[in-house]
Amino acid sequence: MNMERDGFFTEEDSVQVVTGRNRGAKDERLREVMEVITRKLHEAVKEIEPTQDEWMAAIQFLTATGHMCNDWRQEFILLSDVLGVSMLVDAINHRKGGEVGASESTVLGPFFVEGAPELPMGSDICKDGKGEPMFVHGRILNAEGNPVAGARIDVWQANDEGFYDVQQKGIQPDFNLRGVFRTGPDGRYWFKGVKPKFYPIPDDGPVGKLLGALGRHPYRPAHLHYMIEAPGFDTLVTHIFDPADPYIGSDAVFGVKESLLAEFRPVDDPSAMEASGFAGPFLDVEFDFVLSRPGHRDGATESTGALE
Amino acid sequence: MNMERDGFFTEEDSVQVVTGRNRGAKDERLREVMEVITRKLHEAVKEIEPTQDEWMAAIQFLTATGHMCNDWRQEFILLSDVLGVSMLVDAINHRKGGEVGASESTVLGPFFVEGAPELPMGSDICKDGKGEPMFVHGRILNAEGNPVAGARIDVWQANDEGFYDVQQKGIQPDFNLRGVFRTGPDGRYWFKGVKPKFYPIPDDGPVGKLLGALGRHPYRPAHLHYMIEAPGFDTLVTHIFDPADPYIGSDAVFGVKESLLAEFRPVDDPSAMEASGFAGPFLDVEFDFVLSRPGHRDGATESTGALE
Repeated sequence: MNMERDGFFTEEDSVQVVTGRNRGAKDERLREVMEVITRKLHEAVKEIEPTQDEWMAAIQFLTATGHMCNDWRQEFILLSDVLGVSMLVDAINHRKGGEVGASESTVLGPFFVEGAPELPMGSDICKDGKGEPMFVHGRILNAEGNPVAGARIDVWQANDEGFYDVQQKGIQPDFNLRGVFRTGPDGRYWFKGVKPKFYPIPDDGPVGKLLGALGRHPYRPAHLHYMIEAPGFDTLVTHIFDPADPYIGSDAVFGVKESLLAEFRPVDDPSAMEASGFAGPFLDVEFDFVLSRPGHRDGATESTGALE
Repeated sequence: MNMERDGFFTEEDSVQVVTGRNRGAKDERLREVMEVITRKLHEAVKEIEPTQDEWMAAIQFLTATGHMCNDWRQEFILLSDVLGVSMLVDAINHRKGGEVGASESTVLGPFFVEGAPELPMGSDICKDGKGEPMFVHGRILNAEGNPVAGARIDVWQANDEGFYDVQQKGIQPDFNLRGVFRTGPDGRYWFKGVKPKFYPIPDDGPVGKLLGALGRHPYRPAHLHYMIEAPGFDTLVTHIFDPADPYIGSDAVFGVKESLLAEFRPVDDPSAMEASGFAGPFLDVEFDFVLSRPGHRDGATESTGALE
C-alpha cells in the first residue's frame, strides 16, 4: 500500500505521476509521444495558471472545434495551420531537406484534387476566360542543374476572385485552373493561367473566432500550387507566391518562404505577346524547381498507427 | 517589403513568428495564454518530430474526441482528467490553499446534481437498501479546530455496483445515495449510506481507446463526494477514499490525495450496532473537514471570456 501511495498526484510531481502510468504502453513510440505531450501540457498549465473558468473555456473551444469538423471541413487542421504547427511539421519532415539547393516545400492545403486532366505543354488551364492572363514557365532540374525529363507537374490555383473550382461547383467549370504536365528531355514546362488572388481560410468557425480575438486576419497571399513527381526523386509539394500580394508578409497559415517568391512580371511588348500566344498584355512568371534524390532526409520515423 | 519578409516562418523562429502575429489581440490575458500555448506546442512538436502520418493521427484523435461530445458526454474533460490536467488546474487554484491545515480539494466530477433533498441528520441516503451498510460521521471545523455551525454538506456516492443514480434512471430511485445535511452548534454531521464501489470512467470513446493503448485501466477507486459550504468560509469540493480499494494507487483521473484517505472500519459489536441503529455489522467511517476562510488564496485571475 505504501508503495502505491508514492504515486499520488501532487502539483510538483504531476508529470512523473501521470507519465509513470504509461509503463505498460503497447507501443514504445506512443509512450514517448504521450510523455512529451503530457510534460509540455503540464508546463503550459503551470505557466498559465488558468482559472477554472479559463480551463472550461479551453474545453469548450476544443469541443466547438471538433463539432465543426465534418467530411468536408477539418477545423483541427485549420487550428494546426494558424498556430504554425502544420508548417512546423512540414519543416521537420523536410529538415536537412534532401540535396543542397533543392526547392523548399510548403503545405499541400485542402484544395488538391486527384485526377486533374493531363494537358499538352502550353495549355491554358483557365477554362472560363476570367482574370488577368499569366504565362508560367521554367525548368525542372536536379541538384547538379541538369534537366529532369518525364517529371509530372500537377498545378492548381485559385481564380481571380480567390476561389478554387471545388469551392464554386456550378459557377466555375470542373477542373478549372488545374492541370497536369509532363516534361520532355529539356526539363522545361510552360502553361497559361490567370493571376491568382489572396483568399481567406474558412473563418466562420471557432478558429476564425480565435483569429479575430487575436487581431489576426484570415488571408493567404496569392499563390500557385505545385506537386512535382519524377522517377528517382522525392516528390515536391510546394507553392510559388506573388511577392506584391498585400498579405505576403502575414500568411494566415505561415506557408510563405523567401525562396518561393516568384516575380509576376507585366509584359506588354507586342512581339512577346505574339510569341507567347496572348492577344494583349499578360504576366510572365518564370520559376525553376530543383528536385532532390531520396535518401538525403533523416529523422523520419514510421507512424505507430496505435491510435488509428 | 523587406521588413515584412523578416516575418517568414522558419523552424528556428517558429514561436516568435506565430506569436508575433498576436500583437493586436483584443485581450492581454488571451494574448499571454496563446503565447504560452503556442510556445509549448512548438516545443512538443520539435521534441516529438512527428511524421505527417503521426500528425494526421493526432488531428483524427482530436476530431473523434470532439465528435464524442454531446449534451451528456464531455470527452475533452475526460481527456483533461486522464492526462492529469484537471487535477493540476484544481491544485493550482487551491495552491497556498487557504489556511494552514484546511482540508484538500479534489475534482467535482460529472455526477454532481443540484437539488438533492435536505435531510435530518442521521438519515440513510440509500433508498433501495442495496449494499453494505455504512455509518459516516465527523465534524466540520475551522482552522483553529472549533466547530462550524450551519455548514451545508452535500454528499453523493456511487452504489455497491459502482453506478450513480443518474446513470441508472429507472433502476435506482431518484436522488438515491444523495443528501444535504446542515450542522448544528457542535459542527457534527452523521448519516447512513452504503459502501461505494470503484467504477470505470466512460471508456467506449477515443479517451478509453487511448487508455487501452497506454496499458492503463479506466477505474476510479471507491469514494464519497462532499461539497461543503458555510457562511464566511471557502466552499470545499472534495472526496474521501477507501484506502483498501484495489485502484487506490492508480485512480484513472489522479483524484486521490493522501490526506483524503478515510478508514472504513468494520463494526460487529452488538452495542455499537444498536447505538448506530443498524441490525447487523456495518462500516464506520469517521472524517473531519477543516474549512478555510477566504482571502488566503492568490494567483486567481478573472476569466477573459474572450472566446466564450
